[in-house]
Amino acid sequence: MTKVISSASMSLDGFIAGPSESGFEYLFAWHRNGDVNVPSADPRWSFQVTETSADHIREQLATFGALVVGRRLFDVTRGWGGNHPCGVPIFVVTHRAPVDWPHPDAPFTFVTDGLESAVRQAKAVAGERHVGVAAGDMARQALDAGLLDELQIDLVPVLLGSGTRLLGDLAHAPVTLSGPTVAESIGVTHLRYQVNR
Amino acid sequence: MTKVISSASMSLDGFIAGPSESGFEYLFAWHRNGDVNVPSADPRWSFQVTETSADHIREQLATFGALVVGRRLFDVTRGWGGNHPCGVPIFVVTHRAPVDWPHPDAPFTFVTDGLESAVRQAKAVAGERHVGVAAGDMARQALDAGLLDELQIDLVPVLLGSGTRLLGDLAHAPVTLSGPTVAESIGVTHLRYQVNR
Repeated sequence: MTKVISSASMSLDGFIAGPSESGFEYLFAWHRNGDVNVPSADPRWSFQVTETSADHIREQLATFGALVVGRRLFDVTRGWGGNHPCGVPIFVVTHRAPVDWPHPDAPFTFVTDGLESAVRQAKAVAGERHVGVAAGDMARQALDAGLLDELQIDLVPVLLGSGTRLLGDLAHAPVTLSGPTVAESIGVTHLRYQVNR
Repeated sequence: MTKVISSASMSLDGFIAGPSESGFEYLFAWHRNGDVNVPSADPRWSFQVTETSADHIREQLATFGALVVGRRLFDVTRGWGGNHPCGVPIFVVTHRAPVDWPHPDAPFTFVTDGLESAVRQAKAVAGERHVGVAAGDMARQALDAGLLDELQIDLVPVLLGSGTRLLGDLAHAPVTLSGPTVAESIGVTHLRYQVNR
C-alpha cells in the first residue's frame, strides 16, 4: 500500500529551521560529513555521508514515487531548477500556478484544489512506491487531515532555541506514534515513526 | 569530574508538557510499560519498565549525588513529600524559602541567591557523583550560564502539538551537542548528549 511519508532534519529541541531561516548549516551538516558519495537525480548535487546515512538516503531516494510540496518550499528552492533530487513527479500545492515557470517540461504539477487532491494525484502516479510530503506546514496539514502514515526524523545534535517547529500546532493533539526504528549515524540519528490511527 | 546533567521525557515535537500541564500520561507511559520493577528511594513509588529502561533508570538513580530544582517543580510536586525518588540532597532555587515546609529534617536546602550558587552547593555535596538540574526552566538557565554538561532526553513517540518546550528560548543559540548515545526501549528512546563548549 502506498504510504504518505514526511521526512525532516530536526534539531533536538524540535526545530526544522532556526530564526529567520537560519541554522541549515547545522541541520544539514550530516549531508556532508562522511566519505560515501550518494548521487541524487540532479547531477549538480550529491550527498557525502557516512555509510549509515548513505543507506538511509538511498532507501529514501528509492522509496518515493511522487512528492507533494507546498508553494513556499517550491519558491524558496526556485522549484529546484525543475530538477528535484528525488527525480520523481512533484505536486505543488498552491492557490495559483506560477505564470513564469521556466521549466514547463519538468514533471511538476500545480494543484490549486488543495492538499487532499494533491495527495490523491501523487498516489495515482507513485505506483508501488510512496508519497513524500514536505515541508512542515504541508506535513501538519496532512497529519491534521488523517493522511500521514509515517514520520522520518533526522534528529540533529544541536539546540536552535527558536525558529520553525517540526509541525507547529496540531488540530487534533496528541497524536500517538509507533516505533521508532533507529539508525545511529554521526551527526544525526535517523528515526522512523508510524502514525497511529 | 562532577557533571551537571539535565534529564527530561520529551515528545517527538519537543514538548516536556502538553498545553495546561497535560500529556504526562503519554510522556511517562514508559515508566509503567514493562515487567521489571525498579524501586526508587521513595518506598511509595517504583518504576515498572522494560529491561532497557530499567538499566537506564538504575544508572540515573546511581548517577546523581544532588539535585537542583526550581521552585515551581518543588511546588507542583509538593516537595515530593520531603522524599525525592533519587534520595539525595535537593537544592531548591527560590526567591524566598517556604514558611510552612512540613519536612524540616528532609535534605532540602532553599537557595535564595540564584542558580549558580545552588549548582555550586550541589556540586560540593555530590562527591564523585553528578548534579541533576530540573525542570526545563532551570535547565535552560544552566545552559545559558554555561553550567550544563549533559542532556539526557527520553524521547517519547507522541506529538503533543503545543505546551512547554524542552528548554524554551536560549540566550546563546545555537548550541551544538556531541552524541547521542542511544538506548532503544519500548515507548521511549533514551538519548544522551554532551554539551559542546
